[in-house]
Amino acid sequence: MTAPRTIRRLGERSRRERAELDAVLDAGLVGTLSTVVDGQPWVVPMLYVRDGDRILLHGSTGAGALRHVAAGAPAALSVVHLDAVVVAHSTFDSSANYRSAVVYGTLRPILDAEGRRVALTRVSDAILPGREAEVEPMSAREVAATQVMQLEVHEGEWLVKVRTGGPGEPERPTGAWTGVVPLRVVADEPVPDPRSAGEPVPASVRERVRRGVSAV
Amino acid sequence: MTAPRTIRRLGERSRRERAELDAVLDAGLVGTLSTVVDGQPWVVPMLYVRDGDRILLHGSTGAGALRHVAAGAPAALSVVHLDAVVVAHSTFDSSANYRSAVVYGTLRPILDAEGRRVALTRVSDAILPGREAEVEPMSAREVAATQVMQLEVHEGEWLVKVRTGGPGEPERPTGAWTGVVPLRVVADEPVPDPRSAGEPVPASVRERVRRGVSAV
Repeated sequence: MTAPRTIRRLGERSRRERAELDAVLDAGLVGTLSTVVDGQPWVVPMLYVRDGDRILLHGSTGAGALRHVAAGAPAALSVVHLDAVVVAHSTFDSSANYRSAVVYGTLRPILDAEGRRVALTRVSDAILPGREAEVEPMSAREVAATQVMQLEVHEGEWLVKVRTGGPGEPERPTGAWTGVVPLRVVADEPVPDPRSAGEPVPASVRERVRRGVSAV
Repeated sequence: MTAPRTIRRLGERSRRERAELDAVLDAGLVGTLSTVVDGQPWVVPMLYVRDGDRILLHGSTGAGALRHVAAGAPAALSVVHLDAVVVAHSTFDSSANYRSAVVYGTLRPILDAEGRRVALTRVSDAILPGREAEVEPMSAREVAATQVMQLEVHEGEWLVKVRTGGPGEPERPTGAWTGVVPLRVVADEPVPDPRSAGEPVPASVRERVRRGVSAV
């Protein structure tokens, strides 16, 4: 596809390195998938996982709208992490620190069972590292009941913006306090189900807590 | 506008009370605005503020794409808060707790200066409560240089989904640990600019920290 021309209008906050895209994507778990249905915007928040040059998304095969998106419609995945409220000397100059990514492309359903199993393992592993080894393998029925889609990452079809730092300098000194209010996501202590009460928290869950999530 | 027909397909996680929409919107500061440009999805993360039955969005009048969106194109604002990773007895049943909202409509630019000033005051007040009283009033030039748009909230043109609780019951007992990993956003101690070092943190900033942000 051709990226909308707006994608090429890069401002000072734009980042051009592919590694910066990966960093923004890998810091989050949830994004907004957008497509066009009957000329109208159609959006749904989804868990996503980057796997090399593709982004994996999954859902029930019963989800009608997802099926539409999977059928080759143009799509965009948007991810944003809010890192701070930036308090300037004026409301006009106040701002926010953030990291955002938008990946444009066409979603392609992964139709073969083996490809789907591999993709679902990647998804599971990204969300709960090593969880696959702690539970029974996915059954053929489970693999069949899950729709997995991939959005390939192509050069020139993504946009990353990052704002960091404090507020800009005022034109003339004011008495107003200026600075930032940092925001971050914390993963709290895992809460067991009643049936797992007292059991040790498994490695996959401990690793999820350790890695944290930086999306706000 | 007519909401896409998918908006009416409500599952068990859907919430129908307007107060639930307001709660999801008010818990966050940043969302994804989606529209359609030349038949393609076009998306941008934005700060937003709910003000009664309208959602306010703002940006520079120089932002070309924002101008397009403001010119009556159909739009959708998506907000999602990720509250927990839900660890089930199988990867298939693992899930996430979240609160999400999508508001469909048409963005309308607020063109008159007084309406824009009122709207910008609402935006400032929602992000930094009472900040207006701590800084000089917005100048006419600043009001003129800011584009403010409103997206009206109409019944039947929004969608809220909420998942809470733990994983579902397995069909038969397994040895796997199950439970949730709670995620939440924290606002850390405000960090002053060098020029405000040692000065007391103003009430607006303290209130921002106190209220917190629940969007992840």
